[in-house]
Amino acid sequence: MPVQQRRIQILETATVLIAERGFWGVTLRDVAIMCGITEAGVLHHFSSKAKLLIAVLEYRDEADFVALARLLGIERGDIERTPLPVSLRELCTALITRNAGQPEIVRLYSVLNAEALEPSHPAHAYFQDRETMALSLFRRAMPENDEAIHMSRQILAAMDGLQLRWLRTPDDVDLVPEWENFFERAFL
Amino acid sequence: MPVQQRRIQILETATVLIAERGFWGVTLRDVAIMCGITEAGVLHHFSSKAKLLIAVLEYRDEADFVALARLLGIERGDIERTPLPVSLRELCTALITRNAGQPEIVRLYSVLNAEALEPSHPAHAYFQDRETMALSLFRRAMPENDEAIHMSRQILAAMDGLQLRWLRTPDDVDLVPEWENFFERAFL
Repeated sequence: MPVQQRRIQILETATVLIAERGFWGVTLRDVAIMCGITEAGVLHHFSSKAKLLIAVLEYRDEADFVALARLLGIERGDIERTPLPVSLRELCTALITRNAGQPEIVRLYSVLNAEALEPSHPAHAYFQDRETMALSLFRRAMPENDEAIHMSRQILAAMDGLQLRWLRTPDDVDLVPEWENFFERAFL
Repeated sequence: MPVQQRRIQILETATVLIAERGFWGVTLRDVAIMCGITEAGVLHHFSSKAKLLIAVLEYRDEADFVALARLLGIERGDIERTPLPVSLRELCTALITRNAGQPEIVRLYSVLNAEALEPSHPAHAYFQDRETMALSLFRRAMPENDEAIHMSRQILAAMDGLQLRWLRTPDDVDLVPEWENFFERAFL
């Protein structure tokens, strides 16, 4: 298998396993067996289990940014602009719509986000940075005032929390309309 | 050590370890070593790792109900009443105030709540039941109308999500006032 294809196979396999059992519940051996290679084969591409985890997250993040820009009808680079060229509501709806289509990925982030609260977790710093990045993204889509810090934090909280309900009982919770209902109640 | 005291020591030890590493990251051997006993000693009190986990959760839940009733100035049994003898706001503030005093326990529930989305997780059914119980608790403190199901779900989402922000950056998020700000924005 070509190098790039093998790398992606390992990343996709690790994504599924870590979503199911968390970082601590997966060994490099588990990943290797599911890829049909040896543990040394995995280590050839990713030099440690922690490095594999960070590679999984970065691989997913970039895919999400590209999909988000497409949903918003903007360029990938526009997501870094201040102010954002879309409204807060458009931004939120696009994020939730993207997530509604990939429950396994949202589950991966939900498990790791909780696990990585522990300072010794290898993704601890990554999730701290991701929190800062997400809050900044929301704030660049809203007016700057005393409530902005609270509102950005509460939007992130509302999304995380609602996604947990949806992942637990997907038959009861229709994620996108439930989000719109929440947004209109709290953030309009 | 008397039997009841040993049981509580094992439950408290397992609580801390599972909060740090999730269910999959902890072995009965880890729990035994920290208690200064053998794995057989742990199994004498709790016949499997899954049973120990459920015992940890039930032990914590009962402590929470007792503390919640005390904060609300009602009897433990009043929490089961319909309608609840307190307002929605009082109920929410008491829940958040209780949680603000026990970050390690909230972290345990955050990690397990995410891990247990996986149907094969031993606490999967427990967390399904807990979700139903929590939604019912909120609904018994609000008027019955078309919005009640959405509002109860969104309150639970807001609490879970805000607690994650607080656990990640406790210096930035003052949980009780942040909750009051969110409640006034969304649920008043």
